[in-house]
Amino acid sequence: MLSRPIHRFSFNQATANRWPTPEVIDGCAAAGVGWVGLWREQTQEYGLERTVAHLRAADVAVSSLCRGGFFQRDDWLDDNRRAIDEAAALGAPTLVLVSGGLGESDLDGARRRVAASIADLVPYALDAGVRLAIEPLHPMFASDRCVISTLALALDIAEQHPDAAVGVVVDTYHVWWDERVYEQIRRAGPRIAAFQLADWITPLPAGVLTGRGLPGTGCVDLARLWQAVDDAGYTGPVEVEIFNDELWNRPGADVLRETIASYDAVRSTR
Amino acid sequence: MLSRPIHRFSFNQATANRWPTPEVIDGCAAAGVGWVGLWREQTQEYGLERTVAHLRAADVAVSSLCRGGFFQRDDWLDDNRRAIDEAAALGAPTLVLVSGGLGESDLDGARRRVAASIADLVPYALDAGVRLAIEPLHPMFASDRCVISTLALALDIAEQHPDAAVGVVVDTYHVWWDERVYEQIRRAGPRIAAFQLADWITPLPAGVLTGRGLPGTGCVDLARLWQAVDDAGYTGPVEVEIFNDELWNRPGADVLRETIASYDAVRSTR
Repeated sequence: MLSRPIHRFSFNQATANRWPTPEVIDGCAAAGVGWVGLWREQTQEYGLERTVAHLRAADVAVSSLCRGGFFQRDDWLDDNRRAIDEAAALGAPTLVLVSGGLGESDLDGARRRVAASIADLVPYALDAGVRLAIEPLHPMFASDRCVISTLALALDIAEQHPDAAVGVVVDTYHVWWDERVYEQIRRAGPRIAAFQLADWITPLPAGVLTGRGLPGTGCVDLARLWQAVDDAGYTGPVEVEIFNDELWNRPGADVLRETIASYDAVRSTR
Repeated sequence: MLSRPIHRFSFNQATANRWPTPEVIDGCAAAGVGWVGLWREQTQEYGLERTVAHLRAADVAVSSLCRGGFFQRDDWLDDNRRAIDEAAALGAPTLVLVSGGLGESDLDGARRRVAASIADLVPYALDAGVRLAIEPLHPMFASDRCVISTLALALDIAEQHPDAAVGVVVDTYHVWWDERVYEQIRRAGPRIAAFQLADWITPLPAGVLTGRGLPGTGCVDLARLWQAVDDAGYTGPVEVEIFNDELWNRPGADVLRETIASYDAVRSTR
């Protein structure tokens, strides 16, 4: 086993989304990466118990599980409870919530439903020892993926609950444009449950989901945002989670190597 | 000449962007449309003086001219002064400003440059009797097209100048997702220099510029936003400006007819 030279780095498996989960875990261990961000679909595909055993054998920890949320769906309650159970089994301290789009509601109604659903989930999450983390997504996803579009709105909901129960995710890709982002990161303080690095590149592809760039390939002031998150008191892992078709077509080990290099380049500018 | 039954409606020529300017003007006059929103490129192509003469003959007024802005470009000052001159010649009360992307700056620097450039232009605009109107564009355009992403940020800049000199554009497509939009429309009050209707549809196309839908085809609560703008004291024309490849491939007269129908449908729900 290598030592762990890559301080705070976590590899989110969505960055190499065709790499099988056990290979992701082994690849991280071999590269000296101590943290991995997992997704439910891939974990279920390999098997929850097998994933838990594989993580333990490789001595790799889960920084976050993606994702709960999508509160406009009929089965949201059962599905989110299962997600909390899975996070607990994996030892993931944080379940990322992507709140879902409008569904049949108007915007205010959909946002009220997110707040009410999270309130319903809090006791279950506290019992499980899993922190719910509301992730604001870029406003271009507001209609179909996430009606929580700003850190301010995520905090308005999170602050109705104890710190330990509900936090927020700061993903640079989603929040960089917001003129209030530094003020809201200060406000978030101990609410910051996860921090993710991704860069903004143009032109956006059709559907816009897979247009993100590795840290350093775009226009976002990643070093400043990272410093702000640290200044707010966050000391946890720093995930890199990139949805990008070109990356997805490459071998997982190459993607991991390049992701680590991009992370190190940002870290060195801080 | 028909009477003008279509109260407040203005047809922005970008909605049928391959329709020659004189035909746009004649089409509006024939359909009973009293206002048209013009673009500089198309106006220059037909000729400024010819456009002025054609408007006068058809008894069609210009609600706004698009666009000044792009303050990161080297020739921004000359170009914006020409845009002001053109707006004055056309009798357009409002010059829409699309502020431009990051250029070589960071986000804060680009935003400061927008504010400083507008301050430089104000005396010239006041002399010309043209009101500058800062248009916040959706945050998905922040890097490459417009660093002013919210109505709040547009108002922060506008409020440094007299109402008559600098206002804002409220385009439903760009602001609908913002949890502060109703509060900021109230704040804007007499600053509202133009109001534009466009709907949000998904999936977004590559490049995202041409993904807008005619009023009523998407998820935006257009009636509520319109009411809010009226409640803030706005009594001016209501433009429909849609960038959509499918519309652009159709005959201009058909597009105008369908645009009027979509406008009337929204109006009838108010």
